[in-house]
This record gives sequence, structure tokens and C-alpha cells, in this order.
Amino acid sequence: MAKGLFVTLEGSEGVGKSTQLRLLHSALASLGHDVLTTREPGGSPGAEDLRQLLLFGKNPLSLRAEILTHFAARADHLDQMITPALAEGQIVICDRFTDSTMAYQGYGRAEGEPDVLDMISRLQSQLGRDPDVTFLLEAPRDVARLRLAARGAPVDRYEQSDEAFHARVSAGFREIARQNTGRIRRLQTDAHSAEEINSLIVKDILSHIAQA
Amino acid sequence: MAKGLFVTLEGSEGVGKSTQLRLLHSALASLGHDVLTTREPGGSPGAEDLRQLLLFGKNPLSLRAEILTHFAARADHLDQMITPALAEGQIVICDRFTDSTMAYQGYGRAEGEPDVLDMISRLQSQLGRDPDVTFLLEAPRDVARLRLAARGAPVDRYEQSDEAFHARVSAGFREIARQNTGRIRRLQTDAHSAEEINSLIVKDILSHIAQA
Repeated sequence: MAKGLFVTLEGSEGVGKSTQLRLLHSALASLGHDVLTTREPGGSPGAEDLRQLLLFGKNPLSLRAEILTHFAARADHLDQMITPALAEGQIVICDRFTDSTMAYQGYGRAEGEPDVLDMISRLQSQLGRDPDVTFLLEAPRDVARLRLAARGAPVDRYEQSDEAFHARVSAGFREIARQNTGRIRRLQTDAHSAEEINSLIVKDILSHIAQA
Repeated sequence: MAKGLFVTLEGSEGVGKSTQLRLLHSALASLGHDVLTTREPGGSPGAEDLRQLLLFGKNPLSLRAEILTHFAARADHLDQMITPALAEGQIVICDRFTDSTMAYQGYGRAEGEPDVLDMISRLQSQLGRDPDVTFLLEAPRDVARLRLAARGAPVDRYEQSDEAFHARVSAGFREIARQNTGRIRRLQTDAHSAEEINSLIVKDILSHIAQA
């Protein structure tokens, strides 16, 4: 059975993850690869139910309950969707994964509190599956805000947060990238067209497949 | 600030936990104690949302996602309700807690698989709060089934399970009690009236308060 590749896209809202997810699916499928694109929180039916509570629930959870709910959704997504697809040799591309929990809950909500960062690391290691490669998309906050305003989608709990929160999240992503240089590639999405970024990511994914 | 007492009632469906919860509240309140009765999964508003998914959701979660969701609900319940009540010196009496996760998911669903029992133990130790005393109510399965039939409440995911599952859960509770003799007292609810059981539990709780 062929070994699949587990790719994640990370970054703050409005940096262009959804656009890249769509372009990547087309580009890799047209090269003959079997590609599954998915997202977190959610992805599998049960995890999508948990996503609704996390993003739009009327009763906010305590911080550690929120982190555990993210990992509950992630476990279901892995068990029922990602792990079976990888076992069939597919390229799985996921919009957000544990790096987002670390950035939003660990650095954003908990302001980098070491006990919270430890809790997230322990839960991730208990899951037993890290991404093979992660692309961290970055753009200046004013560019991201313009993209979000143009989108007009329903505003969730995180997009409503204040600018200090978003600054902590972005700094958190940079810190996570510094600690995982082997896995995470940083891409400045405002410096290139979406097609140029797509082309860089496709080349990187193909080189990973060639090495596997 | 007075130190509260954290009491849990455990056991299979139909053994009389709800009756005891009600009787205990009356008896302890009439003695002048400040009592909070609550239940799991649920208890706090966010945890009740998670309860709906766990018991009545249309999209069943993978085993470890189900366990993590129980602990997400439990963390919220502790953080937003139980821990503040204990800090005020209240007696908190909770219908089900981690012993039920161990019995239903660990022994029932996972059939005692050591990795699953370990996962539950680790999550519980990360929560940082065990009950001070637990009453495990037990009754023969045919007695419990008659009580359930008389109740006429909506049937949840666990009550629908087969008899082999219920037998594993009951055996699981007995095993948990053997491993925690200092904390767990077993009570045969078919051998005494509800009032006699209540009187035994009240005496035990009062002796715990006297020792504290």
C-alpha cells in the first residue's frame, strides 16, 4: 500500500489559505495525484458538529475545554478521514491543524502561558500523527483585513477578536515556525501572486513525494 | 474560605442514581449545608451542548474523539461550575464523573484495551481534580431494566447498547472500585429501600466533612 503525504496550510484569517487549497487541489489532481482537501476544526461529520460549537456556540467553553474540544474534533478527523486516506496513498491537504490550536489558544488566548503550550504539545503527541510538511502563509494584517472584508462570510469567534489578539496569534505562528524549521515553510502571500505561491507549494510537495 | 466536598454517584443506568441525588440534596440542605447537585456529561452550559452531541448526535465519533469530548465537557464543568462551588465551601454532588468514562468507554466500548484505559487515566490526571468520595450504586441488570422501562425517558446511545456491553460496563465499575477502595464505596440498591441507601450515604458524607 502506497504511503500518502499529509500536508497542512496554516496562518491567520485572510492570508489566502482557501485560495491555495483550491489551486493545490486542481494542480495536483491534474498531475494525476489522488488528493483529499479538508479543513479544521471539522473535516469529518462528527468533527463538523464540534466545529459548530467551537466557532458559533452560544456558551463559550473554558480555555482547556476549548483545547480538548479541538483535539476531540482532530482525533475524529484523523481516525475517520485523514488516516484512512493516507493509508490509501492519497495526498491529504488540510486547512489548519495543531499549529492553529497552538497559535490561537496557546499564544492568542493564553498569551503563551507555558502550562497551556505544554498541554497542547502533550495532546498532539498523544494523537500520534504530525503533518509531513506545513506551509505557513503570512501577510500584513491590513492586507488580511481587506481580504476578510471582501469575503463577506459569517464572522466567527476568532475573527471578532481584537487586534492585540491577532498580533499574538501571528507572532505565535512565527515562533512555532522557528521551532519546527524542518517541517514548516513560511510564505509571504502579499509578495507574490496566488499562482506563484501555488507553484512554489506544488514544487515542494512533489519533491517530498519524490523523497518518500 | 471553607473547603468544599466533591462527591460523585456512579453506576449503570437504572440503579437509582437520580433518586439518590434528589434525596441527598434534600437531606443535606435540611441539615443546613450548601449543596450543588449536577451531572455529567454536562452540568455547565457549554458542557450540556457537548452532552447533546455525545448522547444524541447523528454522527458517531471515533472512540478517542468520544473520550476527548467527555473530557472537554468535564474540564468546562470543573472550571465553570464545580471548582468555584468547592472554593465557596459547597458540597458538590455529581451524577457520573471520570469513573463512568472509564467504565463505558474504557471497559464497555474498548473492552478494557490497556492503551484506552491509560489514555483516560492520563486525561484525568491532567484535569487535576478527583472526587473526595464516590458512591457506586449497583443493582442486578433485570432490576435496572425494569426501572428504565418505567422511566419512559428518551433512550440515549448507551441505553440502546446490547447486554454484552452493559455486562462489560458493570464489571468495569467493579474493577474500578477494587482499584480505588479508599475513595469508592459500593452500595447494593436492590437490597435496601431508597431511604435506607440515602441514610447510609448522608452518614458517610457527614463523616467526611467532620474529618476535613
